Amino acid sequence: MTDKNYQKVIESLHACMEACNHCYTSSLEEDANHMKACIRLNRECATICSAFEQALSYNTAFIQEYAKLCKTACVACGDECSKHNHDHCKKCAESCYACAKECAQLIA
Amino acid sequence: MTDKNYQKVIESLHACMEACNHCYTSSLEEDANHMKACIRLNRECATICSAFEQALSYNTAFIQEYAKLCKTACVACGDECSKHNHDHCKKCAESCYACAKECAQLIA
Amino acid sequence: MTDKNYQKVIESLHACMEACNHCYTSSLEEDANHMKACIRLNRECATICSAFEQALSYNTAFIQEYAKLCKTACVACGDECSKHNHDHCKKCAESCYACAKECAQLIA
Amino acid sequence: MTDKNYQKVIESLHACMEACNHCYTSSLEEDANHMKACIRLNRECATICSAFEQALSYNTAFIQEYAKLCKTACVACGDECSKHNHDHCKKCAESCYACAKECAQLIA
Repeated sequence: MTDKNYQKVIESLHACMEACNHCYTSSLEEDANHMKACIRLNRECATICSAFEQALSYNTAFIQEYAKLCKTACVACGDECSKHNHDHCKKCAESCYACAKECAQLIA
Repeated sequence: MTDKNYQKVIESLHACMEACNHCYTSSLEEDANHMKACIRLNRECATICSAFEQALSYNTAFIQEYAKLCKTACVACGDECSKHNHDHCKKCAESCYACAKECAQLIA
Repeated sequence: MTDKNYQKVIESLHACMEACNHCYTSSLEEDANHMKACIRLNRECATICSAFEQALSYNTAFIQEYAKLCKTACVACGDECSKHNHDHCKKCAESCYACAKECAQLIA
Repeated sequence: MTDKNYQKVIESLHACMEACNHCYTSSLEEDANHMKACIRLNRECATICSAFEQALSYNTAFIQEYAKLCKTACVACGDECSKHNHDHCKKCAESCYACAKECAQLIA
Protein backbone atom coordinates (compact mmCIF):
# COMPACT_ATOMS: atom_id res chain seq x y z
CA MET A 1 0.00 0.00 0.00
CA THR A 2 2.99 2.19 0.57
CA ASP A 3 4.67 4.02 -2.29
CA LYS A 4 6.12 1.29 -4.52
CA ASN A 5 9.48 3.02 -4.64
CA TYR A 6 9.92 2.53 -0.93
CA GLN A 7 8.63 -1.01 -0.60
CA LYS A 8 12.11 -2.51 -1.00
CA VAL A 9 13.72 -0.24 1.55
CA ILE A 10 10.87 -0.84 4.00
CA GLU A 11 11.44 -4.60 3.70
CA SER A 12 15.13 -4.08 4.25
CA LEU A 13 14.52 -1.90 7.31
CA HIS A 14 12.12 -4.47 8.68
CA ALA A 15 14.54 -7.36 8.19
CA CYS A 16 17.32 -5.34 9.80
CA MET A 17 15.13 -4.48 12.80
CA GLU A 18 14.33 -8.15 13.32
CA ALA A 19 17.96 -9.26 12.89
CA CYS A 20 19.20 -6.60 15.33
CA ASN A 21 16.65 -7.53 17.96
CA HIS A 22 17.40 -11.23 17.57
CA CYS A 23 21.13 -10.48 17.94
CA TYR A 24 20.32 -8.31 20.97
CA THR A 25 18.44 -11.00 22.88
CA SER A 26 20.97 -13.69 21.92
CA SER A 27 24.01 -11.60 22.85
CA LEU A 28 22.46 -10.63 26.17
CA GLU A 29 21.72 -14.28 27.01
CA GLU A 30 24.99 -15.82 25.90
CA ASP A 31 27.83 -13.59 26.97
CA ALA A 32 26.72 -10.08 27.78
CA ASN A 33 30.08 -8.92 29.18
CA HIS A 34 31.86 -9.47 25.87
CA MET A 35 28.99 -8.25 23.74
CA LYS A 36 28.26 -4.86 25.35
CA ALA A 37 28.98 -2.77 22.28
CA CYS A 38 26.97 -5.17 20.15
CA ILE A 39 23.97 -5.07 22.52
CA ARG A 40 23.92 -1.27 22.61
CA LEU A 41 24.20 -0.90 18.86
CA ASN A 42 21.60 -3.63 18.25
CA ARG A 43 19.07 -1.70 20.31
CA GLU A 44 19.95 1.59 18.66
CA CYS A 45 19.88 0.24 15.13
CA ALA A 46 16.62 -1.68 15.62
CA THR A 47 14.95 1.41 17.07
CA ILE A 48 16.10 3.63 14.21
CA CYS A 49 15.12 1.10 11.50
CA SER A 50 11.69 0.73 13.05
CA ALA A 51 11.18 4.51 13.21
CA PHE A 52 12.31 5.00 9.61
CA GLU A 53 10.18 2.10 8.39
CA GLN A 54 7.09 3.70 9.82
CA ALA A 55 8.05 7.19 8.66
CA LEU A 56 8.39 5.94 5.08
CA SER A 57 4.94 4.39 5.30
CA TYR A 58 3.42 7.82 6.00
CA ASN A 59 5.52 9.58 3.37
CA THR A 60 7.83 11.41 5.74
CA ALA A 61 9.07 14.83 4.63
CA PHE A 62 12.51 13.98 6.05
CA ILE A 63 13.73 11.01 4.03
CA GLN A 64 17.25 12.37 3.55
CA GLU A 65 17.81 12.97 7.26
CA TYR A 66 16.29 9.64 8.31
CA ALA A 67 18.35 7.84 5.67
CA LYS A 68 21.58 9.41 6.90
CA LEU A 69 20.82 8.53 10.53
CA CYS A 70 19.84 5.01 9.58
CA LYS A 71 22.80 4.40 7.28
CA THR A 72 25.22 5.53 10.00
CA ALA A 73 23.58 3.29 12.59
CA CYS A 74 23.49 0.29 10.23
CA VAL A 75 27.17 0.64 9.32
CA ALA A 76 28.17 1.01 12.99
CA CYS A 77 26.12 -2.02 14.03
CA GLY A 78 27.30 -4.06 11.04
CA ASP A 79 30.95 -3.23 11.79
CA GLU A 80 30.56 -4.27 15.44
CA CYS A 81 28.72 -7.50 14.62
CA SER A 82 31.36 -8.37 12.01
CA LYS A 83 33.90 -8.73 14.84
CA HIS A 84 32.03 -11.70 16.31
CA ASN A 85 31.62 -15.29 15.10
CA HIS A 86 28.13 -15.95 16.42
CA ASP A 87 25.62 -16.88 13.74
CA HIS A 88 23.24 -14.15 14.92
CA CYS A 89 26.05 -11.59 14.60
CA LYS A 90 26.91 -12.68 11.08
CA LYS A 91 23.28 -12.52 10.02
CA CYS A 92 22.84 -9.18 11.73
CA ALA A 93 25.90 -7.72 10.00
CA GLU A 94 24.55 -8.90 6.63
CA SER A 95 21.16 -7.31 7.28
CA CYS A 96 22.78 -4.10 8.51
CA TYR A 97 24.99 -3.74 5.44
CA ALA A 98 22.08 -4.53 3.10
CA CYS A 99 19.99 -1.90 4.85
CA ALA A 100 22.82 0.65 4.79
CA LYS A 101 23.05 0.13 1.03
CA GLU A 102 19.31 0.80 0.61
CA CYS A 103 19.61 3.92 2.76
CA ALA A 104 22.58 5.13 0.72
CA GLN A 105 20.44 5.00 -2.42
CA LEU A 106 17.92 7.34 -0.80
CA ILE A 107 20.59 9.91 -0.07
CA ALA A 108 20.85 12.31 -2.96
CA MET B 1 14.95 -14.87 12.87
CA THR B 2 12.26 -14.10 15.37
CA ASP B 3 10.49 -16.87 17.25
CA LYS B 4 8.59 -18.87 14.62
CA ASN B 5 5.40 -18.69 16.67
CA TYR B 6 5.30 -14.95 16.35
CA GLN B 7 6.25 -14.60 12.71
CA LYS B 8 2.63 -14.60 11.55
CA VAL B 9 1.51 -11.98 14.05
CA ILE B 10 4.53 -9.81 13.24
CA GLU B 11 3.57 -9.89 9.55
CA SER B 12 0.01 -9.00 10.47
CA LEU B 13 1.15 -6.10 12.67
CA HIS B 14 3.42 -4.86 9.92
CA ALA B 15 0.68 -5.00 7.28
CA CYS B 16 -1.70 -3.21 9.62
CA MET B 17 0.84 -0.48 10.35
CA GLU B 18 1.34 0.12 6.63
CA ALA B 19 -2.42 0.10 5.89
CA CYS B 20 -3.11 2.53 8.74
CA ASN B 21 -0.40 4.94 7.63
CA HIS B 22 -1.57 4.78 4.02
CA CYS B 23 -5.13 5.49 5.17
CA TYR B 24 -3.81 8.33 7.36
CA THR B 25 -2.02 10.16 4.54
CA SER B 26 -4.89 9.57 2.08
CA SER B 27 -7.59 10.71 4.51
CA LEU B 28 -5.62 13.80 5.42
CA GLU B 29 -5.17 14.72 1.75
CA GLU B 30 -8.66 14.00 0.51
CA ASP B 31 -11.15 15.24 3.06
CA ALA B 32 -9.65 15.80 6.46
CA ASN B 33 -12.69 17.48 8.01
CA HIS B 34 -14.85 14.38 7.52
CA MET B 35 -12.11 11.92 8.37
CA LYS B 36 -10.89 13.31 11.72
CA ALA B 37 -11.71 10.23 13.76
CA CYS B 38 -10.16 8.03 11.11
CA ILE B 39 -6.96 10.08 10.98
CA ARG B 40 -6.52 10.00 14.76
CA LEU B 41 -7.15 6.28 15.03
CA ASN B 42 -4.90 5.55 12.04
CA ARG B 43 -1.99 7.25 13.77
CA GLU B 44 -2.72 5.55 17.07
CA CYS B 45 -3.15 2.11 15.60
CA ALA B 46 -0.06 2.35 13.38
CA THR B 47 2.06 3.49 16.33
CA ILE B 48 0.84 0.67 18.56
CA CYS B 49 1.29 -2.01 15.87
CA SER B 50 4.81 -0.78 15.20
CA ALA B 51 5.69 -0.84 18.90
CA PHE B 52 4.26 -4.34 19.39
CA GLU B 53 5.95 -5.64 16.25
CA GLN B 54 9.32 -4.58 17.57
CA ALA B 55 8.59 -5.79 21.10
CA LEU B 56 7.77 -9.26 19.77
CA SER B 57 11.05 -9.33 17.88
CA TYR B 58 12.97 -8.92 21.16
CA ASN B 59 10.79 -11.39 23.04
CA THR B 60 8.92 -8.90 25.19
CA ALA B 61 7.92 -10.04 28.66
CA PHE B 62 4.58 -8.24 28.22
CA ILE B 63 2.87 -10.02 25.33
CA GLN B 64 -0.53 -10.20 27.01
CA GLU B 65 -0.65 -6.49 27.80
CA TYR B 66 0.64 -5.44 24.38
CA ALA B 67 -1.85 -7.79 22.68
CA LYS B 68 -4.76 -6.31 24.63
CA LEU B 69 -3.74 -2.74 23.80
CA CYS B 70 -3.19 -3.63 20.16
CA LYS B 71 -6.43 -5.61 19.78
CA THR B 72 -8.43 -2.71 21.25
CA ALA B 73 -6.76 -0.20 18.93
CA CYS B 74 -7.21 -2.42 15.86
CA VAL B 75 -10.91 -2.98 16.56
CA ALA B 76 -11.49 0.75 17.15
CA CYS B 77 -9.65 1.72 13.96
CA GLY B 78 -11.33 -1.06 11.95
CA ASP B 79 -14.78 0.03 13.17
CA GLU B 80 -14.12 3.64 12.22
CA CYS B 81 -12.70 2.79 8.79
CA SER B 82 -15.67 0.50 8.12
CA LYS B 83 -17.91 3.57 8.10
CA HIS B 84 -16.22 4.99 5.01
CA ASN B 85 -16.27 3.90 1.38
CA HIS B 86 -12.75 4.91 0.40
CA ASP B 87 -10.63 2.02 -0.88
CA HIS B 88 -7.90 2.84 1.62
CA CYS B 89 -10.45 2.71 4.46
CA LYS B 90 -11.77 -0.68 3.36
CA LYS B 91 -8.27 -2.10 3.10
CA CYS B 92 -7.34 -0.57 6.42
CA ALA B 93 -10.39 -2.06 8.13
CA GLU B 94 -9.52 -5.49 6.72
CA SER B 95 -5.93 -5.24 7.97
CA CYS B 96 -7.11 -4.01 11.36
CA TYR B 97 -9.57 -6.86 11.85
CA ALA B 98 -7.01 -9.44 10.68
CA CYS B 99 -4.51 -8.02 13.14
CA ALA B 100 -7.07 -7.91 15.97
CA LYS B 101 -7.71 -11.61 15.35
CA GLU B 102 -4.00 -12.42 15.62
CA CYS B 103 -3.77 -10.38 18.82
CA ALA B 104 -6.79 -12.18 20.26
CA GLN B 105 -5.01 -15.51 19.82
CA LEU B 106 -2.13 -14.24 21.93
CA ILE B 107 -4.46 -13.36 24.79
CA ALA B 108 -4.78 -16.32 27.08
CA MET C 1 -0.15 22.35 27.17
CA THR C 2 -1.35 18.83 27.67
CA ASP C 3 -4.54 18.11 29.60
CA LYS C 4 -3.83 19.22 33.19
CA ASN C 5 -5.10 15.94 34.56
CA TYR C 6 -2.32 14.06 32.83
CA GLN C 7 0.56 16.41 33.49
CA LYS C 8 1.59 14.58 36.67
CA VAL C 9 1.54 11.15 35.08
CA ILE C 10 3.47 12.45 32.05
CA GLU C 11 6.18 13.76 34.38
CA SER C 12 6.27 10.43 36.15
CA LEU C 13 6.52 8.52 32.87
CA HIS C 14 9.29 10.81 31.71
CA ALA C 15 11.29 10.43 34.94
CA CYS C 16 10.86 6.66 34.76
CA MET C 17 12.02 6.55 31.15
CA GLU C 18 15.15 8.49 32.06
CA ALA C 19 15.86 6.38 35.17
CA CYS C 20 15.42 3.14 33.20
CA ASN C 21 17.73 4.25 30.42
CA HIS C 22 20.34 5.44 32.90
CA CYS C 23 20.13 2.08 34.69
CA TYR C 24 20.38 0.32 31.30
CA THR C 25 23.60 2.03 30.22
CA SER C 26 25.15 1.69 33.69
CA SER C 27 24.23 -1.98 34.07
CA LEU C 28 25.54 -2.78 30.61
CA GLU C 29 28.86 -1.05 31.35
CA GLU C 30 29.46 -2.37 34.86
CA ASP C 31 28.53 -6.02 34.95
CA ALA C 32 26.30 -7.06 32.10
CA ASN C 33 26.42 -10.81 32.83
CA HIS C 34 24.82 -10.37 36.24
CA MET C 35 22.41 -7.67 35.12
CA LYS C 36 20.81 -9.32 32.09
CA ALA C 37 17.26 -9.31 33.41
CA CYS C 38 17.68 -5.73 34.56
CA ILE C 39 19.00 -4.58 31.17
CA ARG C 40 16.14 -6.21 29.27
CA LEU C 41 13.46 -4.83 31.55
CA ASN C 42 15.10 -1.37 31.56
CA ARG C 43 14.84 -1.22 27.79
CA GLU C 44 11.27 -2.53 27.78
CA CYS C 45 10.06 -0.23 30.52
CA ALA C 46 11.73 2.87 29.06
CA THR C 47 10.22 2.16 25.65
CA ILE C 48 6.73 1.67 27.07
CA CYS C 49 6.91 4.79 29.29
CA SER C 50 8.06 6.85 26.32
CA ALA C 51 5.24 5.55 24.12
CA PHE C 52 2.60 6.18 26.80
CA GLU C 53 3.97 9.63 27.55
CA GLN C 54 3.56 10.65 23.95
CA ALA C 55 0.16 8.96 23.61
CA LEU C 56 -1.15 10.94 26.59
CA SER C 57 0.06 14.14 24.99
CA TYR C 58 -2.19 13.52 21.97
CA ASN C 59 -5.13 12.38 24.06
CA THR C 60 -4.96 8.69 23.24
CA ALA C 61 -8.25 6.81 23.09
CA PHE C 62 -6.57 3.85 24.83
CA ILE C 63 -5.54 5.15 28.25
CA GLN C 64 -6.76 2.08 30.13
CA GLU C 65 -4.84 -0.36 27.96
CA TYR C 66 -1.67 1.73 27.93
CA ALA C 67 -1.89 2.18 31.70
CA LYS C 68 -2.19 -1.57 32.26
CA LEU C 69 0.76 -2.33 30.00
CA CYS C 70 2.83 0.40 31.61
CA LYS C 71 1.95 -0.55 35.18
CA THR C 72 2.89 -4.17 34.55
CA ALA C 73 6.21 -3.18 32.98
CA CYS C 74 7.01 -0.71 35.77
CA VAL C 75 6.30 -3.26 38.51
CA ALA C 76 8.39 -5.93 36.75
CA CYS C 77 11.32 -3.54 36.24
CA GLY C 78 11.01 -2.16 39.78
CA ASP C 79 11.00 -5.67 41.24
CA GLU C 80 14.10 -6.66 39.29
CA CYS C 81 16.00 -3.46 40.14
CA SER C 82 15.09 -3.90 43.81
CA LYS C 83 17.28 -7.02 43.89
CA HIS C 84 20.43 -5.01 43.22
CA ASN C 85 22.40 -2.58 45.38
CA HIS C 86 23.63 -0.24 42.67
CA ASP C 87 22.54 3.36 43.13
CA HIS C 88 21.12 3.46 39.62
CA CYS C 89 19.05 0.35 40.37
CA LYS C 90 17.65 1.82 43.59
CA LYS C 91 16.73 5.05 41.85
CA CYS C 92 15.24 3.16 38.93
CA ALA C 93 13.12 1.00 41.25
CA GLU C 94 11.84 4.14 42.98
CA SER C 95 10.91 5.76 39.67
CA CYS C 96 9.28 2.55 38.45
CA TYR C 97 7.12 2.15 41.55
CA ALA C 98 6.13 5.84 41.49
CA CYS C 99 5.15 5.48 37.85
CA ALA C 100 3.26 2.24 38.48
CA LYS C 101 1.26 4.08 41.15
CA GLU C 102 0.34 6.86 38.71
CA CYS C 103 -0.68 4.28 36.11
CA ALA C 104 -2.81 2.45 38.68
CA GLN C 105 -4.79 5.64 39.27
CA LEU C 106 -5.63 5.80 35.57
CA ILE C 107 -7.05 2.29 35.63
CA ALA C 108 -10.72 2.43 36.41
CA MET D 1 20.08 11.08 35.94
CA THR D 2 20.97 11.65 32.34
CA ASP D 3 24.24 13.29 31.36
CA LYS D 4 24.01 16.89 32.68
CA ASN D 5 25.09 18.29 29.33
CA TYR D 6 22.00 16.91 27.68
CA GLN D 7 19.44 17.75 30.35
CA LYS D 8 18.58 21.09 28.74
CA VAL D 9 18.12 19.66 25.26
CA ILE D 10 16.03 16.77 26.65
CA GLU D 11 13.71 19.30 28.30
CA SER D 12 13.48 21.23 25.06
CA LEU D 13 12.71 18.07 23.08
CA HIS D 14 10.08 17.09 25.60
CA ALA D 15 8.39 20.51 25.53
CA CYS D 16 8.42 20.46 21.72
CA MET D 17 6.89 16.97 21.62
CA GLU D 18 4.06 18.12 23.90
CA ALA D 19 3.47 21.36 21.98
CA CYS D 20 3.41 19.51 18.64
CA ASN D 21 0.95 16.92 19.90
CA HIS D 22 -1.27 19.59 21.43
CA CYS D 23 -1.21 21.50 18.13
CA TYR D 24 -1.97 18.23 16.29
CA THR D 25 -5.09 17.39 18.27
CA SER D 26 -6.32 21.01 18.22
CA SER D 27 -5.74 21.46 14.48
CA LEU D 28 -7.47 18.18 13.70
CA GLU D 29 -10.51 19.18 15.78
CA GLU D 30 -10.86 22.77 14.66
CA ASP D 31 -10.29 22.94 10.94
CA ALA D 32 -8.50 19.92 9.56
CA ASN D 33 -8.90 20.83 5.89
CA HIS D 34 -6.91 24.03 6.27
CA MET D 35 -4.36 22.57 8.67
CA LYS D 36 -3.26 19.46 6.77
CA ALA D 37 0.38 20.42 6.46
CA CYS D 38 0.43 21.45 10.10
CA ILE D 39 -1.10 18.16 11.26
CA ARG D 40 1.38 16.07 9.28
CA LEU D 41 4.39 18.02 10.48
CA ASN D 42 3.12 18.03 14.07
CA ARG D 43 3.01 14.25 14.08
CA GLU D 44 6.40 13.95 12.41
CA CYS D 45 8.10 16.47 14.65
CA ALA D 46 6.61 15.03 17.86
CA THR D 47 7.69 11.52 16.89
CA ILE D 48 11.24 12.61 16.09
CA CYS D 49 11.59 14.70 19.27
CA SER D 50 10.36 11.77 21.35
CA ALA D 51 12.80 9.37 19.69
CA PHE D 52 15.74 11.74 20.14
CA GLU D 53 14.80 12.47 23.74
CA GLN D 54 14.94 8.81 24.59
CA ALA D 55 18.11 8.22 22.56
CA LEU D 56 19.90 10.97 24.49
CA SER D 57 18.86 9.36 27.76
CA TYR D 58 20.72 6.16 26.79
CA ASN D 59 23.72 7.99 25.43
CA THR D 60 23.12 7.36 21.76
CA ALA D 61 26.17 6.97 19.55
CA PHE D 62 24.39 8.99 16.84
CA ILE D 63 23.85 12.44 18.34
CA GLN D 64 24.95 14.33 15.24
CA GLU D 65 22.59 12.45 12.92
CA TYR D 66 19.64 12.64 15.33
CA ALA D 67 20.28 16.36 15.89
CA LYS D 68 20.28 17.05 12.15
CA LEU D 69 17.05 15.12 11.61
CA CYS D 70 15.42 16.82 14.58
CA LYS D 71 16.58 20.31 13.69
CA THR D 72 15.23 19.94 10.15
CA ALA D 73 11.87 18.66 11.43
CA CYS D 74 11.61 21.42 14.06
CA VAL D 75 12.35 24.17 11.54
CA ALA D 76 9.84 22.74 9.04
CA CYS D 77 7.12 22.42 11.68
CA GLY D 78 7.92 25.84 13.16
CA ASP D 79 7.74 27.46 9.71
CA GLU D 80 4.38 25.85 8.98
CA CYS D 81 2.90 26.75 12.38
CA SER D 82 4.12 30.33 11.98
CA LYS D 83 1.67 30.76 9.09
CA HIS D 84 -1.34 30.30 11.40
CA ASN D 85 -2.83 32.53 14.07
CA HIS D 86 -4.09 29.86 16.44
CA ASP D 87 -2.62 30.05 19.92
CA HIS D 88 -1.56 26.41 19.76
CA CYS D 89 0.26 27.11 16.49
CA LYS D 90 2.11 30.09 17.92
CA LYS D 91 3.17 28.13 20.98
CA CYS D 92 4.15 25.18 18.83
CA ALA D 93 6.27 27.36 16.55
CA GLU D 94 8.04 28.83 19.60
CA SER D 95 8.79 25.37 21.00
CA CYS D 96 9.96 24.15 17.61
CA TYR D 97 12.37 27.02 17.09
CA ALA D 98 13.70 26.72 20.66
CA CYS D 99 14.27 23.02 20.08
CA ALA D 100 15.89 23.61 16.69
CA LYS D 101 18.32 25.97 18.41
CA GLU D 102 19.25 23.33 20.99
CA CYS D 103 19.74 20.77 18.24
CA ALA D 104 21.93 23.19 16.29
CA GLN D 105 24.26 23.46 19.28
CA LEU D 106 24.76 19.70 19.22
CA ILE D 107 25.80 19.76 15.58
CA ALA D 108 29.55 20.18 15.36
